[in-house]
Amino acid sequence: MQLTTDPVPDPASDYLIAPDPTAARLTRRVAGHDEHGQPVEIAVVEERPLTIFLNSREIVTAMTIGDYPDYLALGFLKNQGMLSGADDVVGVDYDEDIDTVVVRTASQTTYEEKLEKKTRTSGCAVGTVFGDMMEGLEGLTLPATPVRSSWLYALAHKINRTPSLYLEAGAIHGTVLCQGDRPLVYMEDVGRHNAVDKVAGWMLAEGIDPADKILYTTGRLTSEMVIKTAQMGIPTLASRSGFTAWGVEIAQEVGLTLIGRMKGQRFTCLSGEDRLIRDMDPAHAPREDKKHRRKGGEG
Amino acid sequence: MQLTTDPVPDPASDYLIAPDPTAARLTRRVAGHDEHGQPVEIAVVEERPLTIFLNSREIVTAMTIGDYPDYLALGFLKNQGMLSGADDVVGVDYDEDIDTVVVRTASQTTYEEKLEKKTRTSGCAVGTVFGDMMEGLEGLTLPATPVRSSWLYALAHKINRTPSLYLEAGAIHGTVLCQGDRPLVYMEDVGRHNAVDKVAGWMLAEGIDPADKILYTTGRLTSEMVIKTAQMGIPTLASRSGFTAWGVEIAQEVGLTLIGRMKGQRFTCLSGEDRLIRDMDPAHAPREDKKHRRKGGEG
Repeated sequence: MQLTTDPVPDPASDYLIAPDPTAARLTRRVAGHDEHGQPVEIAVVEERPLTIFLNSREIVTAMTIGDYPDYLALGFLKNQGMLSGADDVVGVDYDEDIDTVVVRTASQTTYEEKLEKKTRTSGCAVGTVFGDMMEGLEGLTLPATPVRSSWLYALAHKINRTPSLYLEAGAIHGTVLCQGDRPLVYMEDVGRHNAVDKVAGWMLAEGIDPADKILYTTGRLTSEMVIKTAQMGIPTLASRSGFTAWGVEIAQEVGLTLIGRMKGQRFTCLSGEDRLIRDMDPAHAPREDKKHRRKGGEG
Repeated sequence: MQLTTDPVPDPASDYLIAPDPTAARLTRRVAGHDEHGQPVEIAVVEERPLTIFLNSREIVTAMTIGDYPDYLALGFLKNQGMLSGADDVVGVDYDEDIDTVVVRTASQTTYEEKLEKKTRTSGCAVGTVFGDMMEGLEGLTLPATPVRSSWLYALAHKINRTPSLYLEAGAIHGTVLCQGDRPLVYMEDVGRHNAVDKVAGWMLAEGIDPADKILYTTGRLTSEMVIKTAQMGIPTLASRSGFTAWGVEIAQEVGLTLIGRMKGQRFTCLSGEDRLIRDMDPAHAPREDKKHRRKGGEG
């Protein structure tokens, strides 16, 4: 199903970075046949490999739509604990021809030290990624930043009406960094973790303070998503989609305000009820018109 | 939102393995507050770590709902190319207390050989997983098995009405191995790849011929999903959700019949039109009643 967007009072003008659904590189028309056997052409998101290097070391190949490879690489390394804030990033080089991005640091990173130790003992670091993620949470407590329900409603309304690859082609996730009722940076990707990593990379590159920010995502609130948000230092995470038991548990442990199933006037607060200021009657929340209604995240 | 299922003429009786939404271990009631500040309790899927070992080597920690850890481990290793069909699996030991599963082979696997070579040159195998996946596709051509549109409609209808964790708690993906119009094995998991891996593990354990099977998934048809299906030797992949350009391209290359956006009477055939027998007028397809309508995959 193709959705087109009406002209709206340019919600994109508020953004520092907004999706660019018209970018030729991000979608492709694919031919198929519908249920009646009639030929159809459908705008589909691209998906391409991007291999991320940390100095001379190949770290991972991510599947991505291909925009902001520099932010994706920086954010991925940061969120995996392979790059601390203190690491001296001296360059990020993207080579489009060979789909690689190299993040260069002035000195060896903590990850490289860890990896060498690990390599000596077990030969491979595949299994350490998860352990490292949980490691960063020990003793972490997020700032008890208040959140207004009127902001949540306003954000959802603006974000859903913003022209995006989702509205253009579907099969994609969105993550938006917000402040108060203003969406700042709206990233999309085939993997929801990539979208979050691109936001993290932008924050690292720009030196953004996370303490007064809100992260909005179209994806489910799993443990990984909650851990990433907490590690990024962002005290509030909101989503249209559902959540897992462990995601809720971790949010409560680190003091993250967690809002799920946010659709139209409805939402559920799973953690941080004491920091949520209910300043708007849900009956007065902006309506979701059907055209802009998301389907709760796309696979 | 909680959905309950009407008594139906037991669609689960057809299955060899069907979801067990009543299993106490798979869901938990989580407390929260709704948009009016009223306390609510919601059934939420569990998510727990499972660390997979191949012999003495720790391979990965997956986040899973926790059912069928043996099939998940076998299927993961198989789908990552770390275990070939010829490898002599002598045991799969699951230890619930420490969330680990160990797959034991009689002799060293090809993966272990590869890893040792790799370790000598670059010190780590993180970056090879993707390369190994693509490697398995070279020269692969799937059998040109015909598929009837009446099967697709019947499968979607049966699967959507099957009692599942999705209908009970949401925030989960389903993957179903089917034969003709009969769903055989219906796996669910927080990660859609886990659900596919559990199907693959069951097929490996039972020695199932993939040539006449159909894989149905609630998730998007990304390159990874298409590659996995092709490596499993299954010639048809169908989904309610959308698809990426590269997913379509790979399907065409390996001769996989790819059906996307299958909802109600509608679907799009992206690859394998010549193998699709349109034996049912879409107007006669079973209706999706609203209660059983999926939301196109959950985040």
